[in-house]
Formats: sequence, C-alpha cells, structure tokens
Amino acid sequence: MKTYLDCYPCFVRQALEAARMAGADETQQRAVLNHVLDALRRLDLSGTPPEVGDKIHRLVREVTGSNDPYRAVKERSTRESLVLYPRLKALVGEGSDLLDRAVRLAIAGNIIDLGPAGEYDLWATIERVMAQPFAIDDSPAFHDALARTKWVLYLGDNAGETVFDRVLIETLDRPVVYAAKGGPVLNDATVDDALAAGLDEVAEVIGTGSDAPGTILDRCTEDFRLRYDAAELIVAKGQANYETLSTERKGIFFLLQTKCPVIARDVGVPTESIVLKRGVLVGRR
Amino acid sequence: MKTYLDCYPCFVRQALEAARMAGADETQQRAVLNHVLDALRRLDLSGTPPEVGDKIHRLVREVTGSNDPYRAVKERSTRESLVLYPRLKALVGEGSDLLDRAVRLAIAGNIIDLGPAGEYDLWATIERVMAQPFAIDDSPAFHDALARTKWVLYLGDNAGETVFDRVLIETLDRPVVYAAKGGPVLNDATVDDALAAGLDEVAEVIGTGSDAPGTILDRCTEDFRLRYDAAELIVAKGQANYETLSTERKGIFFLLQTKCPVIARDVGVPTESIVLKRGVLVGRR
Repeated sequence: MKTYLDCYPCFVRQALEAARMAGADETQQRAVLNHVLDALRRLDLSGTPPEVGDKIHRLVREVTGSNDPYRAVKERSTRESLVLYPRLKALVGEGSDLLDRAVRLAIAGNIIDLGPAGEYDLWATIERVMAQPFAIDDSPAFHDALARTKWVLYLGDNAGETVFDRVLIETLDRPVVYAAKGGPVLNDATVDDALAAGLDEVAEVIGTGSDAPGTILDRCTEDFRLRYDAAELIVAKGQANYETLSTERKGIFFLLQTKCPVIARDVGVPTESIVLKRGVLVGRR
Repeated sequence: MKTYLDCYPCFVRQALEAARMAGADETQQRAVLNHVLDALRRLDLSGTPPEVGDKIHRLVREVTGSNDPYRAVKERSTRESLVLYPRLKALVGEGSDLLDRAVRLAIAGNIIDLGPAGEYDLWATIERVMAQPFAIDDSPAFHDALARTKWVLYLGDNAGETVFDRVLIETLDRPVVYAAKGGPVLNDATVDDALAAGLDEVAEVIGTGSDAPGTILDRCTEDFRLRYDAAELIVAKGQANYETLSTERKGIFFLLQTKCPVIARDVGVPTESIVLKRGVLVGRR
C-alpha cells in the first residue's frame, strides 16, 4: 500500500507520542518533530507507510537516546494479556467452530496497537469482535490452505496481542514459525516480547531481522526471507503487515482490524471492520 | 493561549482538508502541505494557534487560487440553520429561564465548526447541550454584567452558528454590535455570511477587518479596536476567540464547546464540555 497525504497528520502525531513515550523533554520533542517535518517534505509517496514509520521511530530513538520507548508499555500489555489467557481459552471453547473463534480472538487482540490514534477497551473489543460479521471473510480459502499446508509462517504484530496469537496457534493444529521484530519499534513484539508471552511453547520463534513496522522484506535477514519464500501459508497480523505485504503475490492471509480510515479504504471496508483477507493470487504462485 | 506541539498534527490535517475543500489536485495538496511543514519547522510557539491557522489558510488560498474554499459549505450551513430558526425560537420559549436557554443554544450552534476533526450531528448536539451541565458556569457574573452594560459587542464564529447567535441576541435585550470576519477563513462567518443569516435585523453588523481565525487584535482595523476598547461586555463565541483573547484583561465572556483536547486542557475542563467563562479580571480594567 502506498503512502497517502492523509497519513501525514498521523505521522506527526505518532512522532510526538513516541517522543513523549521515550521521556523526551519539550526541546527534544520539538527536535523530533522538526526532523519528521523535514522528512515528510522530501517523502517518496510510493513507499509504504511503515517505511515512513520506520524512519520516524528511528529518529525518535536517535534524538531521545531511548532504544525501546515502548518497553514498559509492552511488558504491561503482555502481563495483562497473560492474565486473560485462561479466559481467552475458555472463550474459544464456548462455540462449536473453534478455528473461527480463535481467528476472531486473534483479530480482537489486534486492538493492542499504539500506532493509531485513540484509546481502546480490550475486553469490550473482544466481545464486539466475537460477534461482529467479517467485512471480508476468506475463511473457506483459509481453511482449505490450512488443510493443505505442512506448516504455517505467522507474522506477529504487537506485544500483548502475542497471547491472542498463541490461542490461535494452539488451534491451528500445524507446526508454526512465529516471526517477531528484529528490534524495538512502537509496541511491536520483538523476539523477547514473543518469548515473554510463551510463544516458544507453541511455535518456533524467529526474528525477521528488521525493526521496521510491518514486514519490509528487503530489510529482513536472508534467513527470514528463506522461510518466507518457502512458506505455503502465511498468517499476517495487523495493519502494518497489510500495508507492507498487500501487493505481495503470495499465499498470505491478513488478519486485522481496520483502525485507520486510510487503510480501511485501501482494504475496501469501513473502519472498525474485522477482516480475514486472502492476499493476491494465493495458491497460484 | 500559546501553541502546543499537540497542535501540529491538527494543523497538517486542517491544511489538507482546506486544500481539498478548495478543489486542489494532489500536486497542489502536496505543495500546500510542504509549505505548511516548512512553516511548522520555523514556528514561534508563543503565538496563538489561530495565528498559525491564519498562515495555513492563507497558504491554501494562495496555492489553490481559491479565495473562499468553504463558501459553498458556509452557504449550506446558513440555509440549514435558517430552516431551524423557528424550532430554535420555540426551544428557547419552552423553559422559564429564556436567557439560560438562549445561551445554551448559542453554545450548541458552536458545533458548526470545520476546524476540529470529526463529524457532528447538529440536532443531537442541540439536545445534548440544552440538558448538559456547564463545566464552567459564570452565568451570575454574565447576568450582572448584562444588567449593567448599555450595549454588547458580540464576536461571532462560524457561518450557520450565526443563526443561533441571532436567537441569543434577540434574548439579550440590549443593543448588539455583531463583529464578523473581514475576509474568508475556514467556515468562519464573514460580514456577508452574517447578513445572509439576517443578523442585520437584530444587530449592527461590522467586520473586524481581519481574516484570521479568532480575534487577533493587531490584525483588526482601528475602527473595530475602538469598538472593542469601548465595550463593557463582550460575548466571544467559539474556540478560536478563546485562543486569541483568553489572556486579554477585559470584560469578555467566552461561550464555547471544547472540541479540541488541547484547548479543553487550557480551559481546564474535559473535551465536549460547554463553557460560559468570564475573561480574566472582568470589570477591573
């Protein structure tokens, strides 16, 4: 997905929030903003928004000297989600279609995202998503692909959401390789965050090698790309993975909530939708 | 009120919206944004947000060649509010405290504001504001000042909101001088917009001489400033008049809804509050 001019206000907001999260004083906050304003003036709109996000959060880390501004927030999210874990497992077991319920739950967990504006109520979101109709529902193709694949590559998104991913992974009944970020950016789950959620108990946890939001393939390690190329079925969580991989001709299924109007328009659904969307040309590589 | 870094995302959003309202193509939109990003880098934060808004909307008008991007929107707002006028009059007459009800209605009309983000439902807002407790209620001082003054200077805000102002003016029982903008900016009411709302039937309509949002005194004409200095009671509508006049030591009463979190914090109330706030040192000049 390309970058839209509508993304500019959001980039500026996100830079300011990240700077504050990193403990920046007002002078540092302004320095971050000035760098970002300058970067936006020279921006190539053909790149994806997470490529810009990568620049912004790199600037924040450089100016503030904070390597992982969202660390405390991520740790809290993981702790809180782990407390919910038994309730999440119970919630999946309450219906007959376990896979559908686990997919919904994994999408519900995608609300734990500090990129978009606004606050959220986690449990209210869970209840909404468990009952909400899919705006795009490629479940039949997903079930079909799952039945045929030997293993699944799972591209994670945020810390805390990892625990929701764990519940889905436990329901997939296939070996899973769980890819987390190679370094801190926003509240995205790093390998350490994934391990803190216990994902190594249900999957092989690897790093993408990249600390950009989403999955920017040419920033990832050769090792990750080999896994990516070999994967027959990829589960890609969240907006940033959609933004960076939406035009990849690969067997990807995007599981996300549309929290941003620009992304929602690109997906072709309203905001606050839940989506299980098959990537372009799945199975026809 | 000074400008906060939190205002930056909003400035960028507003510039983009205004450029689109002016019919700008994507190249022009980007040109506007680049000018605005540059202006923000060099910004003096001690100025008020409407001074920045003034720059932004001037840029939009220059780049797009559109003198009044919001003209059609303003005309529609005025028409729609005029249709409501009989219902507004009836609503004021339904209670015993006519002045309180007319003040509330004038504040309700302040929702017709295209500066902040988001959409609004006009009638739902009216119903909410008629019943909502004031977050700041300087009504006793307002009633007192009204009883003692010979005339009222009324600083208008947006087109359409003018009709709600008219209902309040008809309830004030004092001669009113209604000051509208000297030229188009955002959906603020110009003299022409005020006349279209029939304000000349209930007040003397004058222009401030300035086409900046709010009331930036040193941009106004000498003639307006004489009226301003002579006024014992000033009614100032909306956020921008608060932003530009909040530290003026004058008998001003601010009537507004707090639609922006930064302004709400400066006022000291939550967002979506209704406020009748006396200016600093009223009556002690």
